Amino acid sequence: MSSNSFGTLFKYTTWGESHGPAIGCVVDGVPPRLPLTEADIQHFLDRRKPGQNRFATQRQEEDRIKILSGVFDGRTLGTPISLLIENTDARSKDYSEIKDKYRPGHADFTYDAKYGIRDYRGGGRSSARETASRVAAGAIARKVLESQLDTEVIIRAAVVQVGPHKISRTNWDWEQVNNNPFFVPDKEIVSTLEEYLDATRKKGSSAGAVVEVIASGIPAGLGAPVSSKLDADIASAMMGINAVKGVEIGAGFACVEMGGEENSDQIRMKDGRPHFLTNHAGGILGGISTGQDIVARIAFKPTSSILHPMKTIDNKNAETEIVTKGRHDPCVGLRGAPVCEAMLAIVLCDHWLRHKAQCT
Amino acid sequence: MSSNSFGTLFKYTTWGESHGPAIGCVVDGVPPRLPLTEADIQHFLDRRKPGQNRFATQRQEEDRIKILSGVFDGRTLGTPISLLIENTDARSKDYSEIKDKYRPGHADFTYDAKYGIRDYRGGGRSSARETASRVAAGAIARKVLESQLDTEVIIRAAVVQVGPHKISRTNWDWEQVNNNPFFVPDKEIVSTLEEYLDATRKKGSSAGAVVEVIASGIPAGLGAPVSSKLDADIASAMMGINAVKGVEIGAGFACVEMGGEENSDQIRMKDGRPHFLTNHAGGILGGISTGQDIVARIAFKPTSSILHPMKTIDNKNAETEIVTKGRHDPCVGLRGAPVCEAMLAIVLCDHWLRHKAQCT
Amino acid sequence: MSSNSFGTLFKYTTWGESHGPAIGCVVDGVPPRLPLTEADIQHFLDRRKPGQNRFATQRQEEDRIKILSGVFDGRTLGTPISLLIENTDARSKDYSEIKDKYRPGHADFTYDAKYGIRDYRGGGRSSARETASRVAAGAIARKVLESQLDTEVIIRAAVVQVGPHKISRTNWDWEQVNNNPFFVPDKEIVSTLEEYLDATRKKGSSAGAVVEVIASGIPAGLGAPVSSKLDADIASAMMGINAVKGVEIGAGFACVEMGGEENSDQIRMKDGRPHFLTNHAGGILGGISTGQDIVARIAFKPTSSILHPMKTIDNKNAETEIVTKGRHDPCVGLRGAPVCEAMLAIVLCDHWLRHKAQCT
Amino acid sequence: MSSNSFGTLFKYTTWGESHGPAIGCVVDGVPPRLPLTEADIQHFLDRRKPGQNRFATQRQEEDRIKILSGVFDGRTLGTPISLLIENTDARSKDYSEIKDKYRPGHADFTYDAKYGIRDYRGGGRSSARETASRVAAGAIARKVLESQLDTEVIIRAAVVQVGPHKISRTNWDWEQVNNNPFFVPDKEIVSTLEEYLDATRKKGSSAGAVVEVIASGIPAGLGAPVSSKLDADIASAMMGINAVKGVEIGAGFACVEMGGEENSDQIRMKDGRPHFLTNHAGGILGGISTGQDIVARIAFKPTSSILHPMKTIDNKNAETEIVTKGRHDPCVGLRGAPVCEAMLAIVLCDHWLRHKAQCT
Repeated sequence: MSSNSFGTLFKYTTWGESHGPAIGCVVDGVPPRLPLTEADIQHFLDRRKPGQNRFATQRQEEDRIKILSGVFDGRTLGTPISLLIENTDARSKDYSEIKDKYRPGHADFTYDAKYGIRDYRGGGRSSARETASRVAAGAIARKVLESQLDTEVIIRAAVVQVGPHKISRTNWDWEQVNNNPFFVPDKEIVSTLEEYLDATRKKGSSAGAVVEVIASGIPAGLGAPVSSKLDADIASAMMGINAVKGVEIGAGFACVEMGGEENSDQIRMKDGRPHFLTNHAGGILGGISTGQDIVARIAFKPTSSILHPMKTIDNKNAETEIVTKGRHDPCVGLRGAPVCEAMLAIVLCDHWLRHKAQCT
Repeated sequence: MSSNSFGTLFKYTTWGESHGPAIGCVVDGVPPRLPLTEADIQHFLDRRKPGQNRFATQRQEEDRIKILSGVFDGRTLGTPISLLIENTDARSKDYSEIKDKYRPGHADFTYDAKYGIRDYRGGGRSSARETASRVAAGAIARKVLESQLDTEVIIRAAVVQVGPHKISRTNWDWEQVNNNPFFVPDKEIVSTLEEYLDATRKKGSSAGAVVEVIASGIPAGLGAPVSSKLDADIASAMMGINAVKGVEIGAGFACVEMGGEENSDQIRMKDGRPHFLTNHAGGILGGISTGQDIVARIAFKPTSSILHPMKTIDNKNAETEIVTKGRHDPCVGLRGAPVCEAMLAIVLCDHWLRHKAQCT
Repeated sequence: MSSNSFGTLFKYTTWGESHGPAIGCVVDGVPPRLPLTEADIQHFLDRRKPGQNRFATQRQEEDRIKILSGVFDGRTLGTPISLLIENTDARSKDYSEIKDKYRPGHADFTYDAKYGIRDYRGGGRSSARETASRVAAGAIARKVLESQLDTEVIIRAAVVQVGPHKISRTNWDWEQVNNNPFFVPDKEIVSTLEEYLDATRKKGSSAGAVVEVIASGIPAGLGAPVSSKLDADIASAMMGINAVKGVEIGAGFACVEMGGEENSDQIRMKDGRPHFLTNHAGGILGGISTGQDIVARIAFKPTSSILHPMKTIDNKNAETEIVTKGRHDPCVGLRGAPVCEAMLAIVLCDHWLRHKAQCT
Repeated sequence: MSSNSFGTLFKYTTWGESHGPAIGCVVDGVPPRLPLTEADIQHFLDRRKPGQNRFATQRQEEDRIKILSGVFDGRTLGTPISLLIENTDARSKDYSEIKDKYRPGHADFTYDAKYGIRDYRGGGRSSARETASRVAAGAIARKVLESQLDTEVIIRAAVVQVGPHKISRTNWDWEQVNNNPFFVPDKEIVSTLEEYLDATRKKGSSAGAVVEVIASGIPAGLGAPVSSKLDADIASAMMGINAVKGVEIGAGFACVEMGGEENSDQIRMKDGRPHFLTNHAGGILGGISTGQDIVARIAFKPTSSILHPMKTIDNKNAETEIVTKGRHDPCVGLRGAPVCEAMLAIVLCDHWLRHKAQCT
């Protein structure tokens, strides 16, 4: 529970303001001799990169990752891996509008309340840009899991709701997720979302989204009994992503309306291994993985930076109004999908290493 | 993210199995010279104590707290406070049914998968009984907040949904919460819930619940920017409670269907202080408190121990069935309310001390 | 670096004041299925127990260990092990002398300076009695190492200096250590020490001591590169023992006067394995174990509780004098030997688990 | 006790190999609004910079610090401060000699044993070059202490022994420390040391050193009772510096030969404040500061990189010999003085913030 670090054995520490010279992170605890290149990480960064279509911020960032330490001759050394991404498109634009006024829904007010100082340029530390560091750390976590687990580990996310529009579960096709700007697994819904988000932006508004993230191939036994339960760590990881306001595991809030006999996943044998007839538990019982898919759903609020004029105050407590111009995602949750994947990979990697230490 | 500890500066470590000689916890980081008696803690334990009405387990535990260290002449010493609760009603009953079979929805299977050994008596470490330790730690956290903050701090929880039955927000009356066995703030719904839960139990089933927990009087500025955001720590704390499958902050999942102009809480001045016109943020922006009420909602799954026969396997991978007899809460979420309060108090106390260290 | 916890993966949290109802600790991270009984721990506690001869405090404590959790049917569960030792001989004697006056060399003054409150009975939290908890934790750490390492692990300590009297290295005989009240490995020096300590006590004085602790059978590769070096953690562990004022690894301070060609341990092969011709490094290079014996020496100051009258002040800043009557060790370092062993076992066990997690 | 991080509330994480593109660290927990520039840090780095005289390695590193985050308009933001130093003189020289052979006294063998891989260029992660990051973090820690404590805080170190040559305590003059290449506070000994080290180098040997570090102006009350005692954290911090083999607090090992009445510092009042007549405790009792000077002494072993041929093995376990050519400090302890100062500042700053959180 450190302020800018996450994890116990697989641990990253992030740093950087949105419009400073760079952002980055240090990843410690990575096993040695793992093949790792900048390209391995870049692949995942490119998925969350801004400016790729009209439904994402038009900020033109290359998000080019540099490995500054911890890798030698293409393999990890077991020492900290320092990752750096330069802020190339941090325009020295006019910040007078947000310098003194607090944008509703943003951290401007709370940063000033906490620190008495704030880097107002592009949201400073509270910018979603910081999540690039987490995606980079997640790319390494995936490689650790892949190299150490016997099973094939697949960690992937999809957007399952945008504003009021939910995808159809029966249409679910993972192949579609990277074929549309909304990361939805349902190609039928794509045109609806295009219209919806175009209209949303046109009226100066924004939209929320729900992301579902699933990890397959995770063995039973990862987790802890009380304070660092696998689901508690997932909840912490997801709620720590910018704009997230809710996290569910498995059936989540829907289980409240089920009876115990429906919600409790019954067990049979299949192919010589325990098999759960349903997965309302989302792959976690008592804070420990069951061997079924790990399933979480994450609610992202609508982007707070909108053209709609909003009542607010300034840092001298004078009442005023604000309109947030600039290059913003109309639905920040869309680019949340790769971040959710990364965070799930990090939590699972950390718990795998912890499990290895104590129980193998 | 330690397995059995929680918190950074205000930190507890819990221990104990449900049917061992005792359970307890060690609370470290408590400020010195704080008046503290066993009665201060007992008050909160009595609220979650079993056996108080027909909708809670009939296990007859006194849950009598003992302070073994860290308090001298009625005041805290600044040294660790060791708390102990004896297991007086740990009957040496017949455990043959659950000794080898895995109860669906329980941690039996996952504990065996992780540790290769399991104290099957009463759920062992995974029993909800362990949360008594957290309630005790929470009682101390409240005292710290009350003694150190200028404002009046009120942290309280209510059950807002049982199975399909949601309370009416317009009937909300905090006075009612402790006047009914369901911890609901709406007296109109009490008879409905009585009928519903009686019927639920009669058919050998169980029910889920949603708890809402609210902290008032928390100053703006508590939290952290990235990894230990106030909401992330709340999510971790709540998801770590037995049977929890979902956590929301403020508007939670409902914000997905709002536009940014509706969801973002606008700001005015009131009585010389910043005042938010709504509180969809649940009192947290960018991981830091706004000074508004901190609001979280927590989904508890239906009790997994039910009379309904369920398909399962045993620890030799043979398929079988199980019926869980015994003294169980038909709706474990009801007794979750005091635990949610305690965990929120702990998270807020920890963040207050951290804020004091860095920013005052 | 928590105030009352030590370790990362093998982690204990201690609690308790010398004259409160009990002292104890919680040990978390212990691997499951390890055979463990109270007798396994009691064996080590008995070695540091007071009242065993005239050179140790005459306090009559049984130091009877109770395991309250984490063990079931004689094997560890992987859950926290709660250990408790009752304070049976905490006499309600007259504390008026030390209640308000600060004993020179003791923590009385500093506890009051830090906390503004103090349990003055028997030194409260700062009593050496607290180290019983660490010895208990150390007993578990040894069992973990023994069960997980292929090699035979031997961790043992001896007193190598008492006041000005140093043992002869050529007489070193481990068999002797438990055959004399001074834990010295040199039977020739026993009568000298008896005379010396009798005379020391007769004149109301006390003596310091140096303990040497050695671990054999530790594989190469345990440790870390920068902040949690094996030697840094050993230094922290040893300096954290009451009355310790110095720690050396291998040649320690003596290496300052050596040339690099003498101090650097040259390497050959022996029995098919790397073999160092000397061990000035004390088994650690760059913070990581070499596979040679781990060797540390620890300086204990003379007992501060003495009959000699000393100038001091009281808690109202008035100048006064104090004579510390009571049951005290004339040379507190003697009973330090089992504590040093325990702490070394704990550090090594923690690093073994960390190594297993990252590098195997 | 994280592998590459140090501290609890004031916390740094270092990264980097000696001949990679850069080294650096992330400092988290720094209070906001503190004036901080690169020059503030550079000042301290320049003191440990190589190549400044013939008694230090001739590697020509500018050690130019860059602040990448956490500072805005010349003041700290309260967010992580990322510091970076490029490796400008990392020559692509011929490493064939040390690529496969283990240099005695170096971490080559242990890194290979632990990680199975090693960046052999210039010692990689185990190079003393890494300590530049700690000196940078220490510069920030000093600023925090200076800005938050009422007293004038002075933290400074001097070399008090080189090989067999000890400085005269009666000649002690802090002014001299920065006026000679040995950081000694005794100008009389300078010519002796020049001759001694010239002769040492001429014969292909090297020398050890003892550094004494003293902090004045530290209030009573900083520290903790058991596991993170002020002296334990100092021991950990100092033993974690490259080449350190011993740490003493106050009288250290010398106290073993004192009687309790001599060693225990008696207390009187002076200028209305408690005053200790001696300071054998080195300013720490029971793990908590007394308000007197904090005093520690640190033993550095002789440089292991020497021209003298040494027996060793290679990474295929073949016996061989090695001569370490290159640019090395003949006495690595000399440049240890600024590192000891930095580490003491970091420990004190961390404990100050912890004290503020719990006890104010």
